[in-house]
Amino acid sequence: MTDNSRPDADWQDFLRHSQQLSDLRGIDALLGWDQSTYQPPAAAEGRSRQMALLSRLIHAHATDAGYGNTLDTLAGRGDLDPVQTRMLALARKDFEQSRRLPEALVGEMAEHWGRTYTAWTTARPENDWAGMVPLLERSLDLTLEAASHFPEFADPHDYYIDASDEGMSAEAIAQVFSDLQRELVPLVQAVTAAQEPRTDFIGGANHYDVQRQLAFGERVIRDYGYDFTAGRQDLTHHPFMTRLGDADIRITTRVQEADPLDALYSTLHESGHAMYEQGIAPQYLGTPLGGGVSSGVHESQSRLWENLVGRSREFWAAYGEDFRAAFPQVLAGVSDEDLYRASNVVRRSLIRTDADELTYNLHVILRFNLERELLAGRLAVRDLADAWQAAYRDNLGLEAPSHKDGVLQDVHWFFGPVAGAFQGYTLGNIMSAQIYAAARRALPELDAQIARCEFGPLHGWLRENIYRHGRLYTPSELIERATGKPLEAADYLAYLRGKYGDLYGLKL
Amino acid sequence: MTDNSRPDADWQDFLRHSQQLSDLRGIDALLGWDQSTYQPPAAAEGRSRQMALLSRLIHAHATDAGYGNTLDTLAGRGDLDPVQTRMLALARKDFEQSRRLPEALVGEMAEHWGRTYTAWTTARPENDWAGMVPLLERSLDLTLEAASHFPEFADPHDYYIDASDEGMSAEAIAQVFSDLQRELVPLVQAVTAAQEPRTDFIGGANHYDVQRQLAFGERVIRDYGYDFTAGRQDLTHHPFMTRLGDADIRITTRVQEADPLDALYSTLHESGHAMYEQGIAPQYLGTPLGGGVSSGVHESQSRLWENLVGRSREFWAAYGEDFRAAFPQVLAGVSDEDLYRASNVVRRSLIRTDADELTYNLHVILRFNLERELLAGRLAVRDLADAWQAAYRDNLGLEAPSHKDGVLQDVHWFFGPVAGAFQGYTLGNIMSAQIYAAARRALPELDAQIARCEFGPLHGWLRENIYRHGRLYTPSELIERATGKPLEAADYLAYLRGKYGDLYGLKL
Repeated sequence: MTDNSRPDADWQDFLRHSQQLSDLRGIDALLGWDQSTYQPPAAAEGRSRQMALLSRLIHAHATDAGYGNTLDTLAGRGDLDPVQTRMLALARKDFEQSRRLPEALVGEMAEHWGRTYTAWTTARPENDWAGMVPLLERSLDLTLEAASHFPEFADPHDYYIDASDEGMSAEAIAQVFSDLQRELVPLVQAVTAAQEPRTDFIGGANHYDVQRQLAFGERVIRDYGYDFTAGRQDLTHHPFMTRLGDADIRITTRVQEADPLDALYSTLHESGHAMYEQGIAPQYLGTPLGGGVSSGVHESQSRLWENLVGRSREFWAAYGEDFRAAFPQVLAGVSDEDLYRASNVVRRSLIRTDADELTYNLHVILRFNLERELLAGRLAVRDLADAWQAAYRDNLGLEAPSHKDGVLQDVHWFFGPVAGAFQGYTLGNIMSAQIYAAARRALPELDAQIARCEFGPLHGWLRENIYRHGRLYTPSELIERATGKPLEAADYLAYLRGKYGDLYGLKL
Repeated sequence: MTDNSRPDADWQDFLRHSQQLSDLRGIDALLGWDQSTYQPPAAAEGRSRQMALLSRLIHAHATDAGYGNTLDTLAGRGDLDPVQTRMLALARKDFEQSRRLPEALVGEMAEHWGRTYTAWTTARPENDWAGMVPLLERSLDLTLEAASHFPEFADPHDYYIDASDEGMSAEAIAQVFSDLQRELVPLVQAVTAAQEPRTDFIGGANHYDVQRQLAFGERVIRDYGYDFTAGRQDLTHHPFMTRLGDADIRITTRVQEADPLDALYSTLHESGHAMYEQGIAPQYLGTPLGGGVSSGVHESQSRLWENLVGRSREFWAAYGEDFRAAFPQVLAGVSDEDLYRASNVVRRSLIRTDADELTYNLHVILRFNLERELLAGRLAVRDLADAWQAAYRDNLGLEAPSHKDGVLQDVHWFFGPVAGAFQGYTLGNIMSAQIYAAARRALPELDAQIARCEFGPLHGWLRENIYRHGRLYTPSELIERATGKPLEAADYLAYLRGKYGDLYGLKL
C-alpha cells in the first residue's frame, strides 16, 4: 500500500466494489439454494423473475463505468504489491468478460440456452436426438461467436477452458488426457474382466434408514473438518456446494433407501468442495481472490476427500464398526473389507454420473475430445451422435441402446456453450492424486491417522498448501507450489494401478 | 386504459417499476426468512451486510428520479380508472415516504435503532431500565423529527398510525380503545375470579411428540385452505408470515414439548395472515395493490382463524378426536369440552405475548396510551417505567416485579420509532369479530360447517370480501363494504361476553 491518500482511496473504492459484487453473488446463491431445497412448487415462475432481475443488477454492477475507471487508474500504479496486482488482474478479467460481449449477443444466448434447455428436458425422455440437432447447431455457432470477442485466444476452445481452468489450454489438456486414456482403456478391461466383490447388501430390497444415513455422513464430514457453524447440509435432487456468504458454505445431498454409499460419497464429495471454500484466507473474502481458483482444483478437493480418503481401506477401518452399528440388520456379517470392496466396484456403464473412479475419466475424456472436434469444425453436429457411439465402443466397449443414455444424457451442452464443460472433472482427478502424494510425503503417518478418524493433519496441510490461497496463484502455479512439479498423470495412474491391482489381485 | 400509445408506455413503465420493487422486496424477504430458519450461526455478519446492501438498492429503486417523473406524468392524466388511480396514489405515498426523509436522518435512525436494539438485548436480562432511558429519549426525538417531514399530519402519532393502518387517526383509535377498555376491565375481573377449567394435561412434565404436533397443525391449516403448493411451514424462535414472491407465502412456528396448544395456535394464527396474502387477486400482485392493506386488517385475519374459528367449541368438535388420537397417552380421558376450555383459559399476566384472548387487548391499549402521552410531551421517557406500572395496576391489577417483565418486555420501542407499533393488534381483534359476524350472517350454517372441518364457505366469503381486494380499498372502506358498517367494538364485546359468559357460567 502507499502513503498517498488518493491512491488509497482508489484502492478502497475497488475493494468496496468487489465486496458488493461478492455480496450480490451471495444473494444470488441464496436464491438458487432455496430454489433447489425448500421453495414451494408454485413459486418457480416468480423466483425465475427475481433471479433474472438480480442477474441484471449484478451485470450492471460488474460493468459499471466508474468501476472501469477505477480499474484503469489502478492499472497505471507502480506501487501495488503482488497480492494487489493479482486481485486487479482477476478483476480486470471479470470486467472484460462481463463487458466485452455485445448486449444483443448476451440476450440471444440467454434466450437460446433457455429454449434449448427446455427442449432437452422433453427430448431426452423422448429420445429425440434429431429434434435437438438444429438447436445444438445454433449453440455451436453462438459458442464460436462469443469466443471471437476474445481474440487473445487463438483457439476458441481455450477461451472456455481458461474461464473455468485459468491458464490451461486445450492442447495441453489433450496431451495429458491422451496419456491417461492410453493407460486407462486396458486397465479398465483387465479390472472388469476380474471377479466382482460381494455387493448383496447394497441395492435391491435392502433398507437403510434415511435419517441415520444423513447423520452418519454428517458425522464423517464433521470429523473431516467441515465447519457446521458456517454451513449446513440439506436434501436436493442433484447434490451441490454453494457459497452464500463469507461464512456460509452449504452443501446438499440425496439419499437412496437401498444404497447408503450413494448419500455417503455424495456428502464426502461436496464436503471437499466446501472445506476448500471454508479454508480461504479471511482477508481474501469479498475480493477477487475469495473463491476456489478453478474447476479442476475444486474437483481435486472433492475427489480427494471422496475417493483418496473416503474410498480407502483405512477409511473403512476407521468407520466400518460405526457404520454397521447404524444399520445392524442389513450389515450383520459384512466386514470392513467387504465395505471397502463394495465402495470400489468397477463396472463399465453408459452413464457418467453413475461411473466409478476408474471408468469415470473415460466418460470425460471422450466428451472433451468431441467438443474439440466440434469446435475445430472437424465434426458436424448432425454426426455427433454417431461419433458418441463410436467413442463409447472404443473406450468402454459399450454402445448406448438409445440417445437418451448417449449423446443426450448430460445437460451441459444443452444449457450453455458447447465447450469447457467437462475437462475440470478429470483435471481434478489427476490433481487429487498428485496433491495427495505430496501430502503423504509431508505426513508419513497419514494412513494411520485416517484409520483413527484423525484428519487434522491432512486438513491442515491442504489448508496451508491449497485452501488459504484462494485465487492468488493460477492453478498451475498452485499445483507446482504444493507438489513440487507441474501437473502430470503419473501419480494418478500409480494410485489407480496400486489400488485396483491390490483389490482385484491383478498385476497392473 | 387508453388508445394513445405514449400514455400506455408511461403506465407500462410504472407497472414494470412496481414489479421490480416487488421482486426486490421478495428477495429481501428470502434473506430474512433464511436468517430466521436455516442460516448457520457464523453467517450472521455477512448476511447483515447483504441485507444492508439490498436495502440501499431497494431505496435507490424506490426513489429513482425517472420513476418520480413517471408518477408526475401519470398524476396529470384524466383517463385512469379507479383501480389505476388507487395504484398511483399508493405508489406516490410510498415514493414520498422513501424520498422525503433526509438521507442524514435515515442514516442516523438506522444507526440509532441498531445501537438501541443491541443495548436492549442486554439491558432486558439485566433489568437495566436506567441505561435505556437516554437511548429511548433520543428515539423519541428521532420519532418526532421524522414525522415533522410530513406536515400533512398535524399529530405526529397519526403519521405512524397511517403508515401501518392507513386513514386511521390516533384520536379515533383512542376513542374505540377507551370504549373497549371500560368494558374489558370489569369483564376480566369477573372471569379471573371464577373457577379455572382443568389444564393438567398442558405444561409441566407432559410430553407431546414434536413431529406429530407439527403434522397436526399443518393438517388443520390445509383444511382451512392454506395452499402448501405456494407456501410452507418451518421452525423459528418467533413465528411469522412472510411473502417471498407472488406464489410463495411462508409461515413459521415454534414447538413446546409440554404444550401442543402453543404450536397449534401459532400455526393457525400465521395461516390466517398467509391465506390473506395467498388470496389477493393475481392481477394485483407486483403492483402497489399486491399486499394486505393494513396491520389491523392483517391481524383481523390471523385472529379470526386462530380465535374465532380455532378457539371455538365447534373446532374441538371437529378435531378433538384426531387430536386425542395423535397423543393418546397424554390425552386419555380428556374430552372435546376439556380441550375447548383449556384453549380459552383466562389469566391476568404481565407478558403481552403470553396473554389470552380476553386480557390481550388491555396490554395493547395501555401501550398505545403511553405512546400517545410520550408523543404529546405529557409523559417524559424517564417517567415511563412508573407510568407503565401504574397502567398495569389500573388495568390488570398487577405489578411487574422487575422492568424486565415491565417496560423492557417488548422489542418494539427499542428497535424503531416509539409510535404506531401496537394499535394494529387490537384493531385486528375488533375487526375480526365484526367481520366474523358479517360472515355468519352470510353463512347461516357456519358453525355446523366448522364442526365438519368444512371451511370452504368461510374461506370463500373472506376471499371474496377481504382477501382478493389487496390494498384496493382503505381499511375503513374495506370494513364497511364487508360488514355494512364502520368499525366499532360492539361485535367484539358481544362475542367476548357471549363466549366467556358461557365458559365461566357468568352473566356478563
